[in-house]
Amino acid sequence: MEAGRRGSPAEGGDVSRTPYPWRVVIPVEDAADPRLADYTRLRDVDLRKSLEGARGLFLAEGEKVIRRAVAAGHPVRSVLTTAKWLGHLADVIEGVTVYLVSDEVMEGVTGFQVHRGALASMERLTPPSVADVISGRGPRAVAGGTEPEGPGGTPRRIVVLEDLVDHGNVGAIFRCAAALGVDAVVLSPRCADPLYRRSVKVSMGAVFAIPYARMADWHDGLAEIRAEGFQLLALTPDRAAVPMDDVPLGDRVALMLGSEGDGLSSHWLHEADHPVRIPMSETAMDLGVDSLNVVAAAAIACHSLVR
Amino acid sequence: MEAGRRGSPAEGGDVSRTPYPWRVVIPVEDAADPRLADYTRLRDVDLRKSLEGARGLFLAEGEKVIRRAVAAGHPVRSVLTTAKWLGHLADVIEGVTVYLVSDEVMEGVTGFQVHRGALASMERLTPPSVADVISGRGPRAVAGGTEPEGPGGTPRRIVVLEDLVDHGNVGAIFRCAAALGVDAVVLSPRCADPLYRRSVKVSMGAVFAIPYARMADWHDGLAEIRAEGFQLLALTPDRAAVPMDDVPLGDRVALMLGSEGDGLSSHWLHEADHPVRIPMSETAMDLGVDSLNVVAAAAIACHSLVR
Repeated sequence: MEAGRRGSPAEGGDVSRTPYPWRVVIPVEDAADPRLADYTRLRDVDLRKSLEGARGLFLAEGEKVIRRAVAAGHPVRSVLTTAKWLGHLADVIEGVTVYLVSDEVMEGVTGFQVHRGALASMERLTPPSVADVISGRGPRAVAGGTEPEGPGGTPRRIVVLEDLVDHGNVGAIFRCAAALGVDAVVLSPRCADPLYRRSVKVSMGAVFAIPYARMADWHDGLAEIRAEGFQLLALTPDRAAVPMDDVPLGDRVALMLGSEGDGLSSHWLHEADHPVRIPMSETAMDLGVDSLNVVAAAAIACHSLVR
Repeated sequence: MEAGRRGSPAEGGDVSRTPYPWRVVIPVEDAADPRLADYTRLRDVDLRKSLEGARGLFLAEGEKVIRRAVAAGHPVRSVLTTAKWLGHLADVIEGVTVYLVSDEVMEGVTGFQVHRGALASMERLTPPSVADVISGRGPRAVAGGTEPEGPGGTPRRIVVLEDLVDHGNVGAIFRCAAALGVDAVVLSPRCADPLYRRSVKVSMGAVFAIPYARMADWHDGLAEIRAEGFQLLALTPDRAAVPMDDVPLGDRVALMLGSEGDGLSSHWLHEADHPVRIPMSETAMDLGVDSLNVVAAAAIACHSLVR
């Protein structure tokens, strides 16, 4: 901490034993330094959305997530860290500009205590189209880099999210989808950004491990997916729907999930081949506790989707 | 607001048209009024734990949750609300002392903006023993009150949580368990309190809809469950475990879940009849994103438990 504040990393305990393969390690003592602008006020959602959009960046937080973002091919703009964490990232950020700050400056810039010790400002890549992602022509993250998916990697099980505006829920659903083996995710135009800091964090980096694309058009977006040969399943609490596990799955299946409160729009429900549900307990129905949160429902439905 | 602040509810818009079946509506203008002590500093976890323990109370937040707590048989100590919300609870809180405050006093007492407009301080009931709950002899919440479960209601599918210390996760797992039809929950001694405000809130009141008990002893707690005839399944990320859906379920099954980071203790894993897992994607394993959060894992496992 002292070392960081004085701008002399060589005086810090761990740091003094660390080799420095980086191009530049720049000690910064002023939270208002314009070079730290990528990291400003991380809790101000509106500011962050406009800043990240304008600069084409996103933030990865913590060593694991930074490693996954780098492995997925995102160039690193810079890293902001403290002396304590500098050594942990040595291999990943070779050739990268590192701003070294004290805990106080870190909190002054970002607006809160960054427990995971390191933030990386990363470049967004050109987003693939829905057509690219659902046909398997888009880039797919693989360990150590990205490479185009061959014909053998055509997605067969995908999840389509309608208007999920909560970053945490989007991140959690990416984590479920990636872990369970869903091949791709498609977002309606109004869904929250998977690369927003909280989405990335909650996903544990899964947003870098599963291909995804955002529809340009909500109204006709499902038609494009159907035209690729996908059976469309709409998850709904409607008791008249078929239990998800009882639906025979076609060769290509798209599972549609809506937000927790409103569920899927009537337009999307109408477009579906089958409304499907997760069976709820009769007792729970009588007691009025017969709903799952959207992440729990997504987890069960994704597990059934990849059966 | 004005009505509340001036202590004259009859002058508030909605309030003036509301009949007053309550025993006492007491306008309070001072956040430090000792009569509001049950509602003090809701974000101070340590303070709340000791205060709620000492007074034998818990807080229910929002109309729906208050209704469920009342239906489960918990006596209401008092209600804290603003003029805007007073009318919504008329039928539920007949005969109850209501403290009517302005938004400012509400925030002054509790330490934050209470969006759901009403808080109720409720009495805890004498907790049932594990033996009572797993044998079905304990009280079971039913719509409109509690009544002892008959022999036909003996629990067959239960969840056992080991050392889940996060109130939100405990609440979310109760919500899943109740909605999917799990019969009861058993907690290890160190699990978070299901009646803590955040647990109750995240559970959407499901903590009032499913019987639960806390083990007195961590080391020998599972033996008691086994002695009741339960098959013990331990959920683990271990790839050598059997997929949960492939395990033939006995007449009575207990599913053991551990915390997200540490999982189940080796002692509990050793006590299990079968370690079981949720199958993960090979690709996700290669990419290191092969884990589910504890709530997603619990949702999938509970769905399989009640198959």
